[in-house]
Amino acid sequence: MKMKRTKVVDALVSTDFGKDINVKGWVRSHRSSKAVDFIALNDGSTIKNIQIVVDPSLVDADLLKSITTGACLSVVGTLVESQGAGQASEIQCKEIEVYGLCPGDYPMQKKGQSFEYMRKYAHLRLRTNTFGAVFRIRHHMAMAIHRYFHEHGFFYFHTPIITASDCEGAGEMFQVTTKNLYNLEKDEEGRIKYDDDFFGKTTSLTVSGQLEGELGATALGAIYTFGPTFRAENSNTPRHLAEFWMIEPEVAFLEQQGLMDLEEDFIKYCVKWALDNCKDDLEFLNNMIDKSLIARLEGVLKEDFVRLTYTEGIRILEEAVKAGQKFENPVSWGVDLASEHERYLVEHHFRKPVIMTDYPKDIKAFYMKINEDGRTVQGTDVLFPQIGEIIGGSVREENYDKLMGEVERRNVPMKDMWWYLDTRKYGTCPHAGFGLGFERLILFVTGMQNIRDVIPFPRTPKNAEF
Amino acid sequence: MKMKRTKVVDALVSTDFGKDINVKGWVRSHRSSKAVDFIALNDGSTIKNIQIVVDPSLVDADLLKSITTGACLSVVGTLVESQGAGQASEIQCKEIEVYGLCPGDYPMQKKGQSFEYMRKYAHLRLRTNTFGAVFRIRHHMAMAIHRYFHEHGFFYFHTPIITASDCEGAGEMFQVTTKNLYNLEKDEEGRIKYDDDFFGKTTSLTVSGQLEGELGATALGAIYTFGPTFRAENSNTPRHLAEFWMIEPEVAFLEQQGLMDLEEDFIKYCVKWALDNCKDDLEFLNNMIDKSLIARLEGVLKEDFVRLTYTEGIRILEEAVKAGQKFENPVSWGVDLASEHERYLVEHHFRKPVIMTDYPKDIKAFYMKINEDGRTVQGTDVLFPQIGEIIGGSVREENYDKLMGEVERRNVPMKDMWWYLDTRKYGTCPHAGFGLGFERLILFVTGMQNIRDVIPFPRTPKNAEF
Repeated sequence: MKMKRTKVVDALVSTDFGKDINVKGWVRSHRSSKAVDFIALNDGSTIKNIQIVVDPSLVDADLLKSITTGACLSVVGTLVESQGAGQASEIQCKEIEVYGLCPGDYPMQKKGQSFEYMRKYAHLRLRTNTFGAVFRIRHHMAMAIHRYFHEHGFFYFHTPIITASDCEGAGEMFQVTTKNLYNLEKDEEGRIKYDDDFFGKTTSLTVSGQLEGELGATALGAIYTFGPTFRAENSNTPRHLAEFWMIEPEVAFLEQQGLMDLEEDFIKYCVKWALDNCKDDLEFLNNMIDKSLIARLEGVLKEDFVRLTYTEGIRILEEAVKAGQKFENPVSWGVDLASEHERYLVEHHFRKPVIMTDYPKDIKAFYMKINEDGRTVQGTDVLFPQIGEIIGGSVREENYDKLMGEVERRNVPMKDMWWYLDTRKYGTCPHAGFGLGFERLILFVTGMQNIRDVIPFPRTPKNAEF
Repeated sequence: MKMKRTKVVDALVSTDFGKDINVKGWVRSHRSSKAVDFIALNDGSTIKNIQIVVDPSLVDADLLKSITTGACLSVVGTLVESQGAGQASEIQCKEIEVYGLCPGDYPMQKKGQSFEYMRKYAHLRLRTNTFGAVFRIRHHMAMAIHRYFHEHGFFYFHTPIITASDCEGAGEMFQVTTKNLYNLEKDEEGRIKYDDDFFGKTTSLTVSGQLEGELGATALGAIYTFGPTFRAENSNTPRHLAEFWMIEPEVAFLEQQGLMDLEEDFIKYCVKWALDNCKDDLEFLNNMIDKSLIARLEGVLKEDFVRLTYTEGIRILEEAVKAGQKFENPVSWGVDLASEHERYLVEHHFRKPVIMTDYPKDIKAFYMKINEDGRTVQGTDVLFPQIGEIIGGSVREENYDKLMGEVERRNVPMKDMWWYLDTRKYGTCPHAGFGLGFERLILFVTGMQNIRDVIPFPRTPKNAEF
């Protein structure tokens, strides 16, 4: 008769003292003395370990000695009230079964390895305190996002990953092909023929689901995407990934005020979810990674976000320059704000999150709704402390003629985009939406500094390991 | 002062009769008479329309006439109790604002178009009753899946989309590259050089997240993936997509009985969620698409799934053949079951879902746990009425030597797979998991017949439109 396994997270809060239970997990540490052995066991369900207290006279000495950090065990024992500080319960061991020993070359054996070292072992860093915390929080943020949109009547909508359109212009794209590259047939003009490629034309990985998201919103009313997106930029920075996850809600009948309300309400919901549901993991990260993490998260909840036009933002920055503030990048109306400018506004001037609106049209995408001034568009980006732009949003131009005016002025390649224009042709409606880079949110919520440390297996230039 | 919009789904259940409300949406039909106009308005929040009752003497005649199927309106009016059958409330119109008219060439104007026709207008079919129902149910199934795993202590885990490994062998893969195909440098042996490709080697789109999912499970305890996967097979059938979404849970310390329990409990939860949360949409589909749909869904909940070894299944099929049953594909121990065999067992012999287990090892993947007989592996596939295999699962071989034995016997290309083998080297543990094709589930739950009709923008050979 096999005993049902108890997860460590449940065993640690159980007060069924005196009862026998079975826990399974990996050894985080093993301390021996003549009278007693202590094994700290973790099963990934929580950042906390459960302590297994072993009477060495009851266990084969060689077996006990072979149990080193990283080994995998099943332990049956009696749950007892812990004498030590910081834990409610521990297990007085009766039986140990070893599922797998762990050789001495285990790469995660030593504590305090650098994050750079651990990236080489991304499959095993998952077994450490820091990365366990990060990826449990990542899970919780995904749950918060789905829950928020579901509760607010949005439908989760899967936009395509492989795309034949390239008009978003958000960045360099990866080509997707099944062609035999050793035998590329060309037409009379020397162009590679794609009629025999899988899709019969050139295709790429999507850089954004927004345009297809608009198709969903103008039918189902309110949708959101949550899927992978891709940028083939050769950027080796702590902020760039070639493959990352995006959340892109899109809402019919939403205008600029409502869009800003949605952005603020949504992101506060996510941050509150983390504080409510990830206490142990956040406390660990607050202690080990960033001492101001929890205070910063709580700060976001307390404040109303500042709502500031781009024009007003530029005025503040220009005054700061006059007063002696130095920026690397020049400030004047019409420039795209650099991270240093955004952070000055958020971290120094206002000391709270800012929703910046009404940008010059030439620094924003073709689909944004043009204001009556003819110079600015209804963008609504959310700027956060530490990370700068966390959300990029806008009201969309729903007027067919105005949209086509921008398409033509900018030479946006629209030949395969008849379906996008159809939304403005058949029963067009005001609508708006935004994009949130999921890993940006995870950086903010965990206090981690490098985006490669908040996705399990990062894809970056020259790196597609695992 | 603008009035807050009320969604149609809320207006229809409101009993605030006499109150003025504002609804917005698209016209599904407009019937005129001298005394009164009826406009059926839908905003995607529900399959039901709200009826707008218009006194034509109060509205500009040309404007009213211009409001045709597909037009987008904002209507202010008084919520009144409906006199007609089948609806509780309707709106006595006071003001109409037209957001967008709809020209006469609107492709969704006529009712009863074929699904094949509608696929050409996948962006507009979203505005029809059938596809609105399908994609609202698709949303609900995604919510059920996240909710189930979250409640059961699984962590949502993002495995990579772009991969450099190709050992899964589940199908043909799409190549991902940033190389300039007009200038492909080769080495002395005539091989294309990939050191200057984005990732410094050949990369493809993933066919499954399972192997990376095992890395998550052997650290976090229990994870699930829910992401896009890709097969570059030239299959033009109602069951194949080149891009589809998969759910792949993976659980440490789970053995075969527990895996079967998980599969059955999970899928019943999803089906129950649909019955509990998608009543209006299911009733529509039951009436219009498949009269036995709801009964079939309820049937799944009522029955314990049959648990049947492959060997026993073959015996039943062989006896059926002896008794006169005709199959196109021959039946004998060792063959991979065809869809006709699976459906015979599920729809004729048992008349309930079947979990088939312990397959011959040579028809299953290299990573499945080998039974003591040395001939069979601990696969656990769930077979459903109508669609055959809906879940493919197995216990994984956790023993390093046994796993390597299969790798070598089958010549599995493992050169880039050191990280997978590490899980068996450092603290190996028993674990198990399964894969569910999301669109297969949606086919079952909606009664739709073609997989291209349950994903918003299907990718199939020669088709990457939208």
